[in-house]
Amino acid sequence: MTVRAAVAGASGYAGGEVLRLLLAHPEVEIGAVTANSNAGQRLGALQPHLAPLADRVLEATSAESLAGHDVVFLGLPHGQSAAVAQQLGDDALVIDMGADFRLKDAADWETFYGTPHAGTWPYGLPELPGARAALAGTRRIAVPGCYPTAVSLALVPAYAAGIVEDDAVIVAASGTSGAGKAAKPHLLGSEVMGAMSPYGVGGGHRHTPEMIQNLSAVAGHRVTVSFTPTLAPMPRGILATCSARAKPGVDAARLRETYEKAYADEPYVHLLPEGQWPNTGAVLGSNHVQLQVAHDPAAGRVLVLAAIDNLAKGTAGGAIQSMNLALGLPETTGLPAAGIAP
Amino acid sequence: MTVRAAVAGASGYAGGEVLRLLLAHPEVEIGAVTANSNAGQRLGALQPHLAPLADRVLEATSAESLAGHDVVFLGLPHGQSAAVAQQLGDDALVIDMGADFRLKDAADWETFYGTPHAGTWPYGLPELPGARAALAGTRRIAVPGCYPTAVSLALVPAYAAGIVEDDAVIVAASGTSGAGKAAKPHLLGSEVMGAMSPYGVGGGHRHTPEMIQNLSAVAGHRVTVSFTPTLAPMPRGILATCSARAKPGVDAARLRETYEKAYADEPYVHLLPEGQWPNTGAVLGSNHVQLQVAHDPAAGRVLVLAAIDNLAKGTAGGAIQSMNLALGLPETTGLPAAGIAP
Amino acid sequence: MTVRAAVAGASGYAGGEVLRLLLAHPEVEIGAVTANSNAGQRLGALQPHLAPLADRVLEATSAESLAGHDVVFLGLPHGQSAAVAQQLGDDALVIDMGADFRLKDAADWETFYGTPHAGTWPYGLPELPGARAALAGTRRIAVPGCYPTAVSLALVPAYAAGIVEDDAVIVAASGTSGAGKAAKPHLLGSEVMGAMSPYGVGGGHRHTPEMIQNLSAVAGHRVTVSFTPTLAPMPRGILATCSARAKPGVDAARLRETYEKAYADEPYVHLLPEGQWPNTGAVLGSNHVQLQVAHDPAAGRVLVLAAIDNLAKGTAGGAIQSMNLALGLPETTGLPAAGIAP
Amino acid sequence: MTVRAAVAGASGYAGGEVLRLLLAHPEVEIGAVTANSNAGQRLGALQPHLAPLADRVLEATSAESLAGHDVVFLGLPHGQSAAVAQQLGDDALVIDMGADFRLKDAADWETFYGTPHAGTWPYGLPELPGARAALAGTRRIAVPGCYPTAVSLALVPAYAAGIVEDDAVIVAASGTSGAGKAAKPHLLGSEVMGAMSPYGVGGGHRHTPEMIQNLSAVAGHRVTVSFTPTLAPMPRGILATCSARAKPGVDAARLRETYEKAYADEPYVHLLPEGQWPNTGAVLGSNHVQLQVAHDPAAGRVLVLAAIDNLAKGTAGGAIQSMNLALGLPETTGLPAAGIAP
Repeated sequence: MTVRAAVAGASGYAGGEVLRLLLAHPEVEIGAVTANSNAGQRLGALQPHLAPLADRVLEATSAESLAGHDVVFLGLPHGQSAAVAQQLGDDALVIDMGADFRLKDAADWETFYGTPHAGTWPYGLPELPGARAALAGTRRIAVPGCYPTAVSLALVPAYAAGIVEDDAVIVAASGTSGAGKAAKPHLLGSEVMGAMSPYGVGGGHRHTPEMIQNLSAVAGHRVTVSFTPTLAPMPRGILATCSARAKPGVDAARLRETYEKAYADEPYVHLLPEGQWPNTGAVLGSNHVQLQVAHDPAAGRVLVLAAIDNLAKGTAGGAIQSMNLALGLPETTGLPAAGIAP
Repeated sequence: MTVRAAVAGASGYAGGEVLRLLLAHPEVEIGAVTANSNAGQRLGALQPHLAPLADRVLEATSAESLAGHDVVFLGLPHGQSAAVAQQLGDDALVIDMGADFRLKDAADWETFYGTPHAGTWPYGLPELPGARAALAGTRRIAVPGCYPTAVSLALVPAYAAGIVEDDAVIVAASGTSGAGKAAKPHLLGSEVMGAMSPYGVGGGHRHTPEMIQNLSAVAGHRVTVSFTPTLAPMPRGILATCSARAKPGVDAARLRETYEKAYADEPYVHLLPEGQWPNTGAVLGSNHVQLQVAHDPAAGRVLVLAAIDNLAKGTAGGAIQSMNLALGLPETTGLPAAGIAP
Repeated sequence: MTVRAAVAGASGYAGGEVLRLLLAHPEVEIGAVTANSNAGQRLGALQPHLAPLADRVLEATSAESLAGHDVVFLGLPHGQSAAVAQQLGDDALVIDMGADFRLKDAADWETFYGTPHAGTWPYGLPELPGARAALAGTRRIAVPGCYPTAVSLALVPAYAAGIVEDDAVIVAASGTSGAGKAAKPHLLGSEVMGAMSPYGVGGGHRHTPEMIQNLSAVAGHRVTVSFTPTLAPMPRGILATCSARAKPGVDAARLRETYEKAYADEPYVHLLPEGQWPNTGAVLGSNHVQLQVAHDPAAGRVLVLAAIDNLAKGTAGGAIQSMNLALGLPETTGLPAAGIAP
Repeated sequence: MTVRAAVAGASGYAGGEVLRLLLAHPEVEIGAVTANSNAGQRLGALQPHLAPLADRVLEATSAESLAGHDVVFLGLPHGQSAAVAQQLGDDALVIDMGADFRLKDAADWETFYGTPHAGTWPYGLPELPGARAALAGTRRIAVPGCYPTAVSLALVPAYAAGIVEDDAVIVAASGTSGAGKAAKPHLLGSEVMGAMSPYGVGGGHRHTPEMIQNLSAVAGHRVTVSFTPTLAPMPRGILATCSARAKPGVDAARLRETYEKAYADEPYVHLLPEGQWPNTGAVLGSNHVQLQVAHDPAAGRVLVLAAIDNLAKGTAGGAIQSMNLALGLPETTGLPAAGIAP
């Protein structure tokens, strides 16, 4: 099978990462690469790491430029995917790496994004219960946010197994690519190197309702989540430190067993051996997820640590994994399981 | 007043930072600089940033080399301070930047350090209730750990004011200098740049009982603390993300008022204006502490964020601030309030 | 003596560094802090590291706001200093940290900057032959560029002593703050972390004629210079690797002796002991310059390596050192000789 | 064809990178992974990024453990490859990533390494004149040093075309992985982040004779080279800034034409469009080489800038490219041409 794929938003970080991964995908041929303000430029000027595509010229994102492809990846600003998707019809598999179709609850969407809700598409996190069935054969995929990817993989097994109470507390550190490629003063290298800072504190980050949605779905009730994202001085990577109050009787053995069982057959989620901790440096550029669990009896909490690459498993890698499932390809086709280190 | 100060452990990070700050202290003359395995070397070979002291030669740490000073700073491995301090007598002000005399509870010490408890000295965190009185005129000071400095400044006002329940959850990111200067493979630049990883997860970090001690003292009961330290790709700085369940009726206004009142007169602890968040990049090299608070009603939690320089306010700066108090000097003498940025 | 100083361009990196250093200057009181587009904002929002000045409000840069100060520091875009300086009259000492008054040759200025030449002011690099005499009592100072500071300190002694032929080749690595605080995509943290790249290759960088001017002045003929600047993944610092062909008969001993003599009495320029190499990490935040020399007989070249902090000795520190000379203060007043490390 | 490959020194950076790349090579099956002091450990504990190999256990490096493989990669300390290679016989293709067999001149070897010369193997830089013929069918390959890879690709065309005089001056910045994984204090993250420093100045670096060998071979005379390596605050990457005096009559057009011709058909060496500069961030993890040229008529020099990944094209990628040639596989089999960014 050769699948022809277009990438809209090819000058951004998500678009660039999809292209990098698709270059190594044996069943994909890269078709149109499109952009908005950067249309007309050589891709080599904007994404100089994509050497094999350096001489491609960016087309304007439009129904025309994206037509005639089997798969269309959308790396567009929030709120722009619906209009583009509608024009593409049902022949193409449309994979939205933005937020527009992730949330089920229209009120949540409106609270956090301030615009009308566009709808809900099958959710591209195959490791969630029921997700693979929903992805098989679909023509529309909503790729999860990078933080919800890490946090859901970390906490869903605990909530699904009923070993934690409510009151999840999550602090996550993200590399700066998570903030995108738009030039903002606080994202300058001079500002971020050597510096850690929080943002969106107190429940305001737009990924919060997505986490609550995923955890609540398996918990069977609305889970409360305190989520604090922080910006770390590195280009990529998310380290999510997640905890929730342990239910009475839960101990380290039961905790570990829960996670061993949950991820025994997953190709990309690896529960590390005891004594080893997740490290974002070990997952760079890969679809690999590192997890570790700990029980703190004195604090009465279960801790789950997760490391992912925010652009790979957290965005473009997850998108391609879901694409493989939608197209009936082996799920791991063309996706690197090994990271780049050091 | 001219105070003659010796620094033991002058080739390490804590010792180097004390020397850097003492060079700018108008009342201090730097006397002996001592080391163990590095004795006999030029300080310029080991601490090349200390240009004015480059030609000093490190003496061996001993009662003799440290004798005859008004103040002796100890930057020694855990467990070595007691023996040295005993030999120095009561004439000298001895300031221990190690852990030996921080904990009041001998059982806590033995659980976390595995050796007999050496005792308890006045605690060098002037901002704690009653601390200044205990430090005035003392001849012995236990400098707090870097994490407990950040976390205590963040959470003590909330516990003292009774606005939070128990169940503090703390995730802190530290620069690599917190791990010291001993060459270990996982601390190589190649390993840490671009990488975040946790350690001491599940209550195992030795700074945990010190935090519990400080918070419990003002809460009036033993506070439970879940503490997860993480290693961040930066040389210095701690960002502590702290939260605790809000007591019923607490709201954002009451929270903010509590912190405004607590730190209104503190020279180094700054509650930032609303909308601005602590950033370790803003406190580099200084004794400056940045704090911000947030109330998350959906999660039922109070959040307090703190940024410090782990080597300055978190170690050597806090040590000199306490020294000033012990010697009857103005508390801020010789200490930089402005950080270096970018 | 208390000197009242204003800083124009206080929201930029040069302006912020002048303010940081002035806060520790015992003879200076900080007056107006001004900006252009940022006028009206709290300084704490733009320079959060300057805690003691956080509540200052930026005024608009104008003759009025800058009037009534003994010293005015200008940290303005190229081409704007002349107009401001003219309005200030001769009462004030005006110190321009921009390029406008550095070059003596109007044709050089016009070639590299494309505007009419504004004039030439006494040059604020006290270590150059004759510079201190020119700075004493002056009311106008042109602060050198950061690269020319490092390169001139590195190569002037060799050219002055006549131990090198022509054909200087200089490759210098600079931290990103040298590129300023304007938000440009290639300066984003995501882009610069983990990346080194050259710019202004082939003689095009505007600091080239300034280097040629300084070296030629002591060589007695127009020196040819190949200068390549590179952007390094660090906020601050310049490492300049400079070489020139050795004259016949020059050997390592004569080379070293030349530099020992040249800098024997300089407070900030330190020729390191043999075997130790300059490191930008050792000069961070300080006026300290690290130099080392080497003779490569096989290549027939003399090498001189220099490390400075581009914002301190390379801009604001050099400015204050020159201010001290102009005002008749001891040259080292208020300037840190020790860097911050690690 | 399925080739069975062993990797000796699998716990080091070169060994880890070979394994990472071999995991994506369609014709290779990974056999023994061996080490010295780390033998007996799980690979996952030492190279946690190599998730698919995490449960492999490192064997001791020996003739026995390496026997029975079609290809053996040696990532051993200098001086240890000869003894191992001798025991392997001529059935296996032995690829030495160390220095032992790179130099042709025994005297050069002895001067720089101080041990007897082990011999000379076909040189694994396919882009050099005649290299592909020498590599076809060979059973022994000496992989070039990382600096000589970058510098030879940068300057060989100029010397081969006779457009430059002698007197090459090279300043190269390398990521810290070039210094290996042994824990040394000056390589700690705390020391290298934010810092640039030179080393091996004045011709002392062991890669100097290898550069001279490669340039002289095409120049037809012994080229003089001034080489200064510097350590940059990034894990990977080399940026080489190379220049040489231009021969009379050489201009920018002729220079560019020379390089366009030299690399027109090379799969991995890309002369960038005018106005774009090499960036180590664009080649991370790939076999991709970015080159740019400039003519500086005022300085009389030709400049060539090169960016490579020191561990990929500079070591393990070059090794696999050469392996492909030796085995008769298409040269680009299994090698990524796109880097990872940001």
